[in-house]
Amino acid sequence: MNILLVHAHPERTSVTHQLAGISSEVLKGQGHEVVQSDLYAMGWKAVFDEQDFPSRANRDRLSFIEESGHAFANGGQTADVEEEQRKLLAADAVILHFPLWWFSMPAIMKGWVDRVWAYGLAYGYRGAGNAHRYGEGGFAGKRALLAVAVGGPEIDYSPRGINGPLEQLLFPITHGTLFFPGMQVLPTFAVYGAAGLDDRGMAEASAAWRGRLDRLFEDAPIAFRPQNGGDYPDRHVLADHVAPGRTGLAAHIAEAGESRRVRPGD
Amino acid sequence: MNILLVHAHPERTSVTHQLAGISSEVLKGQGHEVVQSDLYAMGWKAVFDEQDFPSRANRDRLSFIEESGHAFANGGQTADVEEEQRKLLAADAVILHFPLWWFSMPAIMKGWVDRVWAYGLAYGYRGAGNAHRYGEGGFAGKRALLAVAVGGPEIDYSPRGINGPLEQLLFPITHGTLFFPGMQVLPTFAVYGAAGLDDRGMAEASAAWRGRLDRLFEDAPIAFRPQNGGDYPDRHVLADHVAPGRTGLAAHIAEAGESRRVRPGD
Repeated sequence: MNILLVHAHPERTSVTHQLAGISSEVLKGQGHEVVQSDLYAMGWKAVFDEQDFPSRANRDRLSFIEESGHAFANGGQTADVEEEQRKLLAADAVILHFPLWWFSMPAIMKGWVDRVWAYGLAYGYRGAGNAHRYGEGGFAGKRALLAVAVGGPEIDYSPRGINGPLEQLLFPITHGTLFFPGMQVLPTFAVYGAAGLDDRGMAEASAAWRGRLDRLFEDAPIAFRPQNGGDYPDRHVLADHVAPGRTGLAAHIAEAGESRRVRPGD
Repeated sequence: MNILLVHAHPERTSVTHQLAGISSEVLKGQGHEVVQSDLYAMGWKAVFDEQDFPSRANRDRLSFIEESGHAFANGGQTADVEEEQRKLLAADAVILHFPLWWFSMPAIMKGWVDRVWAYGLAYGYRGAGNAHRYGEGGFAGKRALLAVAVGGPEIDYSPRGINGPLEQLLFPITHGTLFFPGMQVLPTFAVYGAAGLDDRGMAEASAAWRGRLDRLFEDAPIAFRPQNGGDYPDRHVLADHVAPGRTGLAAHIAEAGESRRVRPGD
Protein backbone atom coordinates (compact mmCIF):
# COMPACT_ATOMS: atom_id res chain seq x y z
CA MET A 1 0.00 0.00 0.00
CA ASN A 2 1.02 3.66 -0.37
CA ILE A 3 1.05 5.79 2.72
CA LEU A 4 1.50 9.53 3.02
CA LEU A 5 2.81 10.94 6.28
CA VAL A 6 2.28 14.65 6.81
CA HIS A 7 3.92 16.17 9.84
CA ALA A 8 4.17 19.58 11.37
CA HIS A 9 6.86 20.05 13.99
CA PRO A 10 10.35 21.38 13.30
CA GLU A 11 12.06 19.77 16.30
CA ARG A 12 13.42 16.30 15.68
CA THR A 13 13.15 15.27 19.34
CA SER A 14 9.50 16.32 19.60
CA VAL A 15 6.85 13.68 20.22
CA THR A 16 5.36 14.52 16.82
CA HIS A 17 8.65 13.96 15.00
CA GLN A 18 9.44 10.80 16.92
CA LEU A 19 6.06 9.27 16.16
CA ALA A 20 6.40 10.20 12.49
CA GLY A 21 9.77 8.44 12.48
CA ILE A 22 8.15 5.34 13.95
CA SER A 23 5.44 5.49 11.30
CA SER A 24 8.01 5.49 8.55
CA GLU A 25 10.02 2.67 10.08
CA VAL A 26 7.07 0.40 10.91
CA LEU A 27 5.17 0.90 7.67
CA LYS A 28 8.25 0.41 5.49
CA GLY A 29 8.99 -2.70 7.54
CA GLN A 30 5.58 -4.02 6.57
CA GLY A 31 6.42 -3.56 2.91
CA HIS A 32 4.42 -0.38 2.33
CA GLU A 33 5.59 2.54 0.24
CA VAL A 34 5.95 5.57 2.51
CA VAL A 35 6.03 9.16 1.27
CA GLN A 36 6.53 12.09 3.62
CA SER A 37 5.54 15.72 3.71
CA ASP A 38 7.62 17.21 6.51
CA LEU A 39 6.03 20.64 6.29
CA TYR A 40 8.58 22.59 8.32
CA ALA A 41 11.51 20.98 6.50
CA MET A 42 9.80 21.73 3.17
CA GLY A 43 9.32 25.38 4.14
CA TRP A 44 5.66 24.90 3.22
CA LYS A 45 3.90 28.16 2.30
CA ALA A 46 1.04 28.32 4.78
CA VAL A 47 -0.86 31.32 3.50
CA PHE A 48 -3.42 30.75 0.75
CA ASP A 49 -3.30 33.90 -1.36
CA GLU A 50 -3.19 35.35 -4.85
CA GLN A 51 0.19 33.72 -5.49
CA ASP A 52 -1.67 30.41 -5.59
CA PHE A 53 -3.33 31.46 -8.84
CA PRO A 54 -0.74 32.45 -11.43
CA SER A 55 -3.44 32.37 -14.15
CA ARG A 56 -6.49 34.09 -12.82
CA ALA A 57 -10.03 33.38 -13.96
CA ASN A 58 -10.92 36.87 -12.79
CA ARG A 59 -8.20 39.48 -12.39
CA ASP A 60 -10.56 42.01 -10.84
CA ARG A 61 -11.79 40.06 -7.87
CA LEU A 62 -10.15 37.25 -5.90
CA SER A 63 -12.69 34.53 -5.10
CA PHE A 64 -10.84 31.55 -3.64
CA ILE A 65 -13.55 29.12 -4.71
CA GLU A 66 -13.66 30.38 -8.27
CA GLU A 67 -9.88 30.60 -8.68
CA SER A 68 -9.26 27.25 -6.98
CA GLY A 69 -11.71 25.56 -9.33
CA HIS A 70 -10.26 27.31 -12.35
CA ALA A 71 -6.68 26.49 -11.42
CA PHE A 72 -7.45 22.85 -10.61
CA ALA A 73 -9.42 22.29 -13.81
CA ASN A 74 -6.91 23.99 -16.07
CA GLY A 75 -3.54 22.83 -14.78
CA GLY A 76 -2.97 26.27 -13.33
CA GLN A 77 -2.04 25.35 -9.78
CA THR A 78 1.37 25.99 -8.28
CA ALA A 79 3.90 23.16 -8.40
CA ASP A 80 3.95 22.64 -4.64
CA VAL A 81 0.18 22.19 -4.47
CA GLU A 82 0.17 19.84 -7.45
CA GLU A 83 2.87 17.73 -5.85
CA GLU A 84 0.91 17.35 -2.61
CA GLN A 85 -2.22 16.42 -4.55
CA ARG A 86 -0.22 13.79 -6.45
CA LYS A 87 0.99 12.33 -3.16
CA LEU A 88 -2.54 12.31 -1.77
CA LEU A 89 -4.11 10.76 -4.84
CA ALA A 90 -1.49 7.99 -4.84
CA ALA A 91 -2.00 7.24 -1.13
CA ASP A 92 -4.12 4.46 0.32
CA ALA A 93 -3.76 6.00 3.76
CA VAL A 94 -2.80 9.44 5.03
CA ILE A 95 -1.49 10.05 8.54
CA LEU A 96 -1.38 13.59 9.90
CA HIS A 97 1.11 14.03 12.73
CA PHE A 98 0.85 17.30 14.62
CA PRO A 99 0.95 18.94 18.05
CA LEU A 100 -2.40 20.27 19.23
CA TRP A 101 -2.04 24.08 19.29
CA TRP A 102 -5.10 25.95 20.52
CA PHE A 103 -7.19 22.82 20.07
CA SER A 104 -6.40 22.55 16.37
CA MET A 105 -3.61 22.13 13.85
CA PRO A 106 -0.57 24.41 13.70
CA ALA A 107 -0.99 27.09 11.04
CA ILE A 108 1.50 25.41 8.71
CA MET A 109 -0.71 22.31 8.48
CA LYS A 110 -3.94 24.31 8.24
CA GLY A 111 -2.32 26.06 5.31
CA TRP A 112 -1.53 22.69 3.75
CA VAL A 113 -5.24 21.89 3.87
CA ASP A 114 -6.34 25.38 2.77
CA ARG A 115 -4.13 25.25 -0.32
CA VAL A 116 -4.19 21.56 -1.32
CA TRP A 117 -7.90 20.81 -0.77
CA ALA A 118 -8.90 22.31 -4.14
CA TYR A 119 -12.35 23.03 -5.50
CA GLY A 120 -13.22 20.22 -7.90
CA LEU A 121 -11.16 17.73 -5.90
CA ALA A 122 -11.87 18.05 -2.16
CA TYR A 123 -15.07 20.08 -2.42
CA GLY A 124 -17.35 20.83 -5.32
CA TYR A 125 -16.13 17.43 -6.49
CA ARG A 126 -16.25 17.27 -10.29
CA GLY A 127 -17.99 20.61 -10.27
CA ALA A 128 -21.12 19.06 -8.73
CA GLY A 129 -21.36 21.37 -5.73
CA ASN A 130 -22.25 19.45 -2.60
CA ALA A 131 -23.66 16.38 -4.35
CA HIS A 132 -20.62 14.32 -3.37
CA ARG A 133 -19.36 14.94 0.12
CA TYR A 134 -19.13 13.21 3.49
CA GLY A 135 -18.08 9.75 2.47
CA GLU A 136 -17.77 10.47 -1.25
CA GLY A 137 -15.48 12.80 -3.14
CA GLY A 138 -12.00 13.12 -4.53
CA PHE A 139 -10.33 11.24 -1.70
CA ALA A 140 -12.81 8.36 -1.40
CA GLY A 141 -11.32 4.95 -0.75
CA LYS A 142 -8.46 6.32 1.36
CA ARG A 143 -7.98 5.97 5.08
CA ALA A 144 -6.95 8.86 7.30
CA LEU A 145 -5.62 8.98 10.83
CA LEU A 146 -4.59 11.81 13.14
CA ALA A 147 -1.67 11.31 15.52
CA VAL A 148 -1.79 14.22 17.92
CA ALA A 149 0.63 15.33 20.62
CA VAL A 150 -1.38 17.03 23.35
CA GLY A 151 0.30 19.15 26.00
CA GLY A 152 -2.30 18.75 28.72
CA PRO A 153 -3.56 15.76 30.68
CA GLU A 154 -6.06 13.27 29.30
CA ILE A 155 -8.64 14.07 31.97
CA ASP A 156 -9.06 17.59 30.55
CA TYR A 157 -10.20 15.99 27.26
CA SER A 158 -12.40 13.31 28.81
CA PRO A 159 -16.18 13.20 28.17
CA ARG A 160 -16.81 15.82 30.88
CA GLY A 161 -13.32 17.33 30.88
CA ILE A 162 -12.92 21.10 30.91
CA ASN A 163 -11.45 21.40 27.40
CA GLY A 164 -14.17 19.30 25.81
CA PRO A 165 -13.74 15.75 24.50
CA LEU A 166 -10.80 15.52 22.12
CA GLU A 167 -12.82 13.81 19.40
CA GLN A 168 -15.31 16.70 19.38
CA LEU A 169 -12.59 19.37 19.33
CA LEU A 170 -11.09 17.57 16.32
CA PHE A 171 -14.45 17.11 14.53
CA PRO A 172 -13.76 20.04 12.15
CA ILE A 173 -10.71 18.05 11.01
CA THR A 174 -11.86 14.43 11.15
CA HIS A 175 -15.38 15.00 9.84
CA GLY A 176 -15.16 18.39 8.14
CA THR A 177 -11.77 18.07 6.44
CA LEU A 178 -11.07 14.35 5.97
CA PHE A 179 -14.46 12.61 5.78
CA PHE A 180 -15.87 15.51 3.72
CA PRO A 181 -13.83 14.60 0.61
CA GLY A 182 -14.46 10.91 1.17
CA MET A 183 -11.76 9.52 3.44
CA GLN A 184 -12.53 6.87 6.03
CA VAL A 185 -11.18 8.34 9.26
CA LEU A 186 -9.82 6.15 12.05
CA PRO A 187 -10.19 7.10 15.71
CA THR A 188 -7.56 9.66 16.64
CA PHE A 189 -4.36 8.53 18.36
CA ALA A 190 -3.36 10.99 21.08
CA VAL A 191 -0.35 11.26 23.34
CA TYR A 192 -1.31 13.34 26.37
CA GLY A 193 1.10 15.19 28.60
CA ALA A 194 3.41 15.46 25.61
CA ALA A 195 5.02 18.63 26.95
CA GLY A 196 6.63 16.77 29.84
CA LEU A 197 6.86 13.20 28.63
CA ASP A 198 9.71 11.20 30.17
CA ASP A 199 11.49 8.27 28.54
CA ARG A 200 9.07 5.76 29.98
CA GLY A 201 6.07 7.75 28.79
CA MET A 202 7.56 8.02 25.33
CA ALA A 203 8.25 4.28 25.27
CA GLU A 204 4.64 3.57 26.20
CA ALA A 205 3.35 6.00 23.58
CA SER A 206 5.62 4.46 20.96
CA ALA A 207 4.41 0.97 21.74
CA ALA A 208 0.78 2.06 21.56
CA TRP A 209 1.42 3.83 18.27
CA ARG A 210 3.11 0.75 16.78
CA GLY A 211 -0.03 -1.17 17.63
CA ARG A 212 -2.18 1.34 15.79
CA LEU A 213 0.12 1.25 12.76
CA ASP A 214 -0.11 -2.54 12.68
CA ARG A 215 -3.89 -2.23 12.39
CA LEU A 216 -3.93 0.74 10.01
CA PHE A 217 -5.89 -1.17 7.36
CA GLU A 218 -7.92 -3.25 9.83
CA ASP A 219 -9.27 -0.89 12.49
CA ALA A 220 -12.84 0.23 12.00
CA PRO A 221 -13.19 3.88 10.98
CA ILE A 222 -15.28 6.37 12.92
CA ALA A 223 -18.89 5.67 11.93
CA PHE A 224 -19.54 9.11 10.44
CA ARG A 225 -22.82 9.08 8.56
CA PRO A 226 -22.41 9.39 4.77
CA GLN A 227 -24.39 12.21 3.19
CA ASN A 228 -25.92 10.00 0.54
CA GLY A 229 -26.55 6.92 2.68
CA GLY A 230 -30.10 7.79 3.67
CA ASP A 231 -29.55 9.52 7.01
CA TYR A 232 -29.77 12.99 5.36
CA PRO A 233 -32.64 12.65 2.88
CA ASP A 234 -32.35 16.30 1.83
CA ARG A 235 -28.51 16.31 2.01
CA HIS A 236 -28.72 18.93 4.77
CA VAL A 237 -30.35 17.68 7.97
CA LEU A 238 -30.61 14.36 9.79
CA ALA A 239 -33.88 12.55 9.15
CA ASP A 240 -36.19 12.64 12.15
CA HIS A 241 -35.78 8.92 12.78
CA VAL A 242 -31.97 9.15 12.88
CA ALA A 243 -30.51 9.90 16.32
CA PRO A 244 -33.99 11.10 17.27
CA GLY A 245 -34.06 14.21 19.41
CA ARG A 246 -30.29 14.56 19.48
CA THR A 247 -28.32 17.60 18.35
CA GLY A 248 -24.64 18.42 18.17
CA LEU A 249 -21.58 16.83 16.69
CA ALA A 250 -22.00 13.34 18.12
CA ALA A 251 -25.32 12.89 16.33
CA HIS A 252 -23.34 12.51 13.09
CA ILE A 253 -21.71 9.33 14.30
CA ALA A 254 -23.76 6.14 14.05
CA GLU A 255 -23.98 4.32 17.35
CA ALA A 256 -22.95 0.72 17.80
CA GLY A 257 -25.86 -1.55 17.06
CA GLU A 258 -27.66 1.11 15.07
CA SER A 259 -28.81 -0.28 11.76
CA ARG A 260 -26.84 1.35 8.96
CA ARG A 261 -28.06 1.75 5.46
CA VAL A 262 -25.63 0.58 2.85
CA ARG A 263 -24.74 3.18 0.30
CA PRO A 264 -23.85 2.44 -3.31
CA GLY A 265 -20.26 1.33 -3.54
CA ASP A 266 -19.94 -0.01 0.00
CA MET B 1 -13.34 52.11 24.35
CA ASN B 2 -10.48 50.55 22.36
CA ILE B 3 -11.36 47.96 19.78
CA LEU B 4 -9.05 45.71 17.81
CA LEU B 5 -10.26 44.37 14.47
CA VAL B 6 -8.34 41.41 13.11
CA HIS B 7 -9.24 40.29 9.62
CA ALA B 8 -8.12 37.64 7.23
CA HIS B 9 -9.18 38.06 3.64
CA PRO B 10 -7.10 39.71 0.92
CA GLU B 11 -10.00 40.68 -1.36
CA ARG B 12 -11.52 44.06 -0.65
CA THR B 13 -14.93 43.10 -2.06
CA SER B 14 -15.18 39.94 0.07
CA VAL B 15 -17.88 39.68 2.71
CA THR B 16 -15.15 39.53 5.34
CA HIS B 17 -13.51 42.74 4.17
CA GLN B 18 -16.80 44.56 3.78
CA LEU B 19 -17.93 43.64 7.29
CA ALA B 20 -14.57 44.72 8.69
CA GLY B 21 -15.03 48.05 6.95
CA ILE B 22 -18.44 48.43 8.53
CA SER B 23 -16.95 47.62 11.93
CA SER B 24 -14.42 50.38 11.56
CA GLU B 25 -16.96 52.91 10.36
CA VAL B 26 -19.63 52.14 12.97
CA LEU B 27 -17.32 51.87 15.95
CA LYS B 28 -15.42 55.04 15.10
CA GLY B 29 -18.78 56.73 14.65
CA GLN B 30 -19.63 55.74 18.20
CA GLY B 31 -16.47 57.45 19.43
CA HIS B 32 -14.40 54.31 19.97
CA GLU B 33 -10.73 54.01 19.12
CA VAL B 34 -10.36 51.38 16.40
CA VAL B 35 -7.11 49.60 15.61
CA GLN B 36 -6.81 47.10 12.77
CA SER B 37 -4.73 44.05 12.01
CA ASP B 38 -5.38 43.33 8.35
CA LEU B 39 -3.32 40.16 8.27
CA TYR B 40 -3.02 39.77 4.50
CA ALA B 41 -2.14 43.41 3.99
CA MET B 42 0.45 43.15 6.79
CA GLY B 43 2.01 40.08 5.17
CA TRP B 44 1.63 38.38 8.54
CA LYS B 45 4.06 35.49 9.04
CA ALA B 46 1.77 32.54 9.72
CA VAL B 47 4.28 29.87 10.63
CA PHE B 48 5.39 29.66 14.25
CA ASP B 49 9.01 28.52 14.08
CA GLU B 50 12.53 29.04 15.36
CA GLN B 51 12.64 32.55 13.89
CA ASP B 52 10.18 33.52 16.61
CA PHE B 53 12.90 33.04 19.20
CA PRO B 54 15.97 35.12 18.35
CA SER B 55 17.39 34.50 21.86
CA ARG B 56 16.90 30.87 22.68
CA ALA B 57 16.56 29.48 26.19
CA ASN B 58 17.78 26.18 24.81
CA ARG B 59 19.74 26.09 21.55
CA ASP B 60 19.77 22.29 21.45
CA ARG B 61 16.07 21.59 21.46
CA LEU B 62 13.14 23.69 20.29
CA SER B 63 10.26 23.50 22.77
CA PHE B 64 7.63 26.05 21.79
CA ILE B 65 6.29 26.30 25.33
CA GLU B 66 9.70 26.83 26.88
CA GLU B 67 10.90 29.30 24.26
CA SER B 68 7.62 31.20 24.18
CA GLY B 69 7.72 31.63 27.95
CA HIS B 70 11.37 32.63 27.87
CA ALA B 71 10.89 35.14 25.07
CA PHE B 72 7.77 36.67 26.62
CA ALA B 73 9.36 37.02 30.05
CA ASN B 74 12.63 38.44 28.79
CA GLY B 75 11.61 40.87 26.06
CA GLY B 76 12.90 38.43 23.47
CA GLN B 77 9.88 38.24 21.20
CA THR B 78 9.89 39.45 17.62
CA ALA B 79 8.66 42.97 16.95
CA ASP B 80 5.57 41.85 15.05
CA VAL B 81 4.38 39.63 17.89
CA GLU B 82 5.06 42.33 20.49
CA GLU B 83 3.05 44.81 18.46
CA GLU B 84 0.03 42.50 18.25
CA GLN B 85 0.21 41.85 21.98
CA ARG B 86 0.30 45.60 22.62
CA LYS B 87 -2.81 46.03 20.49
CA LEU B 88 -4.56 43.19 22.32
CA LEU B 89 -3.64 44.40 25.78
CA ALA B 90 -4.91 47.89 24.95
CA ALA B 91 -8.21 46.58 23.58
CA ASP B 92 -11.51 46.43 25.43
CA ALA B 93 -12.95 44.29 22.65
CA VAL B 94 -11.47 42.19 19.88
CA ILE B 95 -13.36 41.25 16.73
CA LEU B 96 -12.04 38.49 14.51
CA HIS B 97 -13.32 38.70 10.93
CA PHE B 98 -12.64 35.66 8.78
CA PRO B 99 -14.06 33.32 6.16
CA LEU B 100 -14.74 29.79 7.43
CA TRP B 101 -12.25 27.54 5.63
CA TRP B 102 -12.55 23.86 6.44
CA PHE B 103 -14.66 24.72 9.46
CA SER B 104 -11.97 26.87 11.05
CA MET B 105 -9.83 29.96 10.56
CA PRO B 106 -7.63 30.51 7.51
CA ALA B 107 -4.03 29.55 8.24
CA ILE B 108 -2.89 33.18 8.36
CA MET B 109 -5.20 33.84 11.33
CA LYS B 110 -4.38 30.55 13.04
CA GLY B 111 -0.76 31.62 12.77
CA TRP B 112 -1.64 34.93 14.39
CA VAL B 113 -3.00 32.99 17.37
CA ASP B 114 -0.17 30.45 17.40
CA ARG B 115 2.46 33.20 17.54
CA VAL B 116 0.80 35.94 19.60
CA TRP B 117 -0.85 33.80 22.32
CA ALA B 118 2.39 33.51 24.32
CA TYR B 119 3.15 31.35 27.32
CA GLY B 120 2.92 33.55 30.40
CA LEU B 121 0.25 35.70 28.76
CA ALA B 122 -2.42 33.58 27.08
CA TYR B 123 -1.58 30.28 28.75
CA GLY B 124 0.60 29.45 31.75
CA TYR B 125 -0.52 32.91 32.84
CA ARG B 126 2.15 34.43 35.12
CA GLY B 127 3.94 31.11 35.06
CA ALA B 128 1.17 29.49 37.09
CA GLY B 129 0.42 26.65 34.68
CA ASN B 130 -3.31 26.06 34.37
CA ALA B 131 -4.30 27.84 37.60
CA HIS B 132 -5.74 30.77 35.64
CA ARG B 133 -7.65 29.81 32.54
CA TYR B 134 -11.18 29.76 31.20
CA GLY B 135 -12.48 33.08 32.37
CA GLU B 136 -9.22 34.29 33.92
CA GLY B 137 -5.85 35.02 32.37
CA GLY B 138 -3.92 37.60 30.45
CA PHE B 139 -6.90 38.79 28.41
CA ALA B 140 -9.48 38.93 31.21
CA GLY B 141 -11.89 41.86 31.10
CA LYS B 142 -11.94 42.00 27.29
CA ARG B 143 -14.81 41.07 25.03
CA ALA B 144 -14.34 38.96 21.90
CA LEU B 145 -16.57 38.35 18.92
CA LEU B 146 -16.23 36.28 15.76
CA ALA B 147 -17.69 37.55 12.50
CA VAL B 148 -17.60 34.63 10.11
CA ALA B 149 -18.37 34.42 6.39
CA VAL B 150 -19.68 30.93 5.69
CA GLY B 151 -19.88 29.59 2.14
CA GLY B 152 -22.67 27.09 2.71
CA PRO B 153 -26.30 27.44 3.73
CA GLU B 154 -27.41 27.96 7.31
CA ILE B 155 -29.36 24.72 7.41
CA ASP B 156 -26.13 22.73 7.10
CA TYR B 157 -24.99 24.33 10.39
CA SER B 158 -28.31 24.03 12.22
CA PRO B 159 -28.69 21.90 15.38
CA ARG B 160 -29.09 18.71 13.31
CA GLY B 161 -27.40 20.00 10.16
CA ILE B 162 -24.89 17.81 8.34
CA ASN B 163 -21.83 19.95 9.09
CA GLY B 164 -22.59 20.17 12.80
CA PRO B 165 -23.84 23.28 14.61
CA LEU B 166 -21.65 26.28 13.87
CA GLU B 167 -21.16 27.16 17.53
CA GLN B 168 -19.79 23.68 18.23
CA LEU B 169 -17.47 23.74 15.21
CA LEU B 170 -16.11 27.05 16.48
CA PHE B 171 -15.79 25.90 20.11
CA PRO B 172 -12.01 25.37 19.77
CA ILE B 173 -11.84 29.09 18.95
CA THR B 174 -14.53 30.64 21.15
CA HIS B 175 -13.91 28.50 24.22
CA GLY B 176 -10.42 27.12 23.68
CA THR B 177 -8.70 30.20 22.25
CA LEU B 178 -10.64 33.26 23.47
CA PHE B 179 -12.31 32.26 26.75
CA PHE B 180 -9.21 30.28 27.78
CA PRO B 181 -7.10 33.44 28.36
CA GLY B 182 -10.05 35.18 29.98
CA MET B 183 -12.05 36.95 27.28
CA GLN B 184 -15.84 37.14 27.47
CA VAL B 185 -16.99 35.78 24.11
CA LEU B 186 -20.16 36.97 22.44
CA PRO B 187 -22.30 34.67 20.31
CA THR B 188 -20.78 34.36 16.84
CA PHE B 189 -22.12 36.48 14.00
CA ALA B 190 -22.32 34.46 10.80
CA VAL B 191 -23.19 35.35 7.22
CA TYR B 192 -24.27 32.18 5.42
CA GLY B 193 -24.21 31.67 1.69
CA ALA B 194 -21.36 34.18 1.54
CA ALA B 195 -19.96 32.64 -1.63
CA GLY B 196 -22.96 33.73 -3.67
CA LEU B 197 -24.35 36.67 -1.75
CA ASP B 198 -26.20 39.19 -3.90
CA ASP B 199 -26.56 42.91 -3.15
CA ARG B 200 -29.73 42.41 -1.18
CA GLY B 201 -28.19 39.63 0.90
CA MET B 202 -25.16 41.80 1.59
CA ALA B 203 -27.40 44.69 2.62
CA GLU B 204 -29.26 42.43 5.04
CA ALA B 205 -26.04 41.07 6.46
CA SER B 206 -24.65 44.58 6.85
CA ALA B 207 -27.74 45.76 8.70
CA ALA B 208 -27.63 42.76 11.03
CA TRP B 209 -23.95 43.33 11.67
CA ARG B 210 -24.51 47.01 12.47
CA GLY B 211 -27.02 45.88 15.08
CA ARG B 212 -24.48 43.58 16.67
CA LEU B 213 -21.86 46.35 16.71
CA ASP B 214 -24.32 48.67 18.43
CA ARG B 215 -24.65 46.12 21.22
CA LEU B 216 -20.98 45.12 21.41
CA PHE B 217 -20.69 46.14 25.05
CA GLU B 218 -24.25 45.18 25.99
CA ASP B 219 -24.95 41.73 24.57
CA ALA B 220 -24.57 38.87 27.02
CA PRO B 221 -21.54 36.69 26.40
CA ILE B 222 -21.76 32.95 25.87
CA ALA B 223 -22.22 31.44 29.33
CA PHE B 224 -19.02 29.38 29.28
CA ARG B 225 -18.33 28.04 32.74
CA PRO B 226 -15.27 29.58 34.40
CA GLN B 227 -12.68 27.10 35.61
CA ASN B 228 -12.49 28.58 39.09
CA GLY B 229 -16.18 29.33 39.60
CA GLY B 230 -17.05 26.07 41.30
CA ASP B 231 -18.24 23.97 38.36
CA TYR B 232 -14.86 22.24 38.06
CA PRO B 233 -13.83 21.57 41.67
CA ASP B 234 -10.62 19.79 40.59
CA ARG B 235 -9.97 22.22 37.67
CA HIS B 236 -10.33 19.29 35.25
CA VAL B 237 -13.82 17.78 35.16
CA LEU B 238 -17.36 19.04 35.68
CA ALA B 239 -18.73 18.34 39.14
CA ASP B 240 -21.34 15.59 39.13
CA HIS B 241 -24.13 18.01 39.96
CA VAL B 242 -23.30 20.31 37.02
CA ALA B 243 -25.04 19.41 33.75
CA PRO B 244 -25.64 16.00 35.29
CA GLY B 245 -25.23 13.08 32.93
CA ARG B 246 -24.27 15.28 29.99
CA THR B 247 -21.08 15.03 27.97
CA GLY B 248 -19.66 16.96 25.05
CA LEU B 249 -19.00 20.58 24.24
CA ALA B 250 -22.40 21.99 25.16
CA ALA B 251 -22.04 20.83 28.77
CA HIS B 252 -19.52 23.64 29.26
CA ILE B 253 -22.15 26.31 28.66
CA ALA B 254 -24.46 27.14 31.55
CA GLU B 255 -28.10 26.87 30.61
CA ALA B 256 -30.57 29.69 31.06
CA GLY B 257 -32.04 29.60 34.53
CA GLU B 258 -29.24 27.46 35.88
CA SER B 259 -27.91 28.91 39.10
CA ARG B 260 -24.41 30.27 38.56
CA ARG B 261 -21.81 30.59 41.21
CA VAL B 262 -20.14 33.95 41.34
CA ARG B 263 -16.40 33.83 41.06
CA PRO B 264 -14.03 36.23 42.75
CA GLY B 265 -13.82 39.42 40.75
CA ASP B 266 -17.22 39.13 39.11
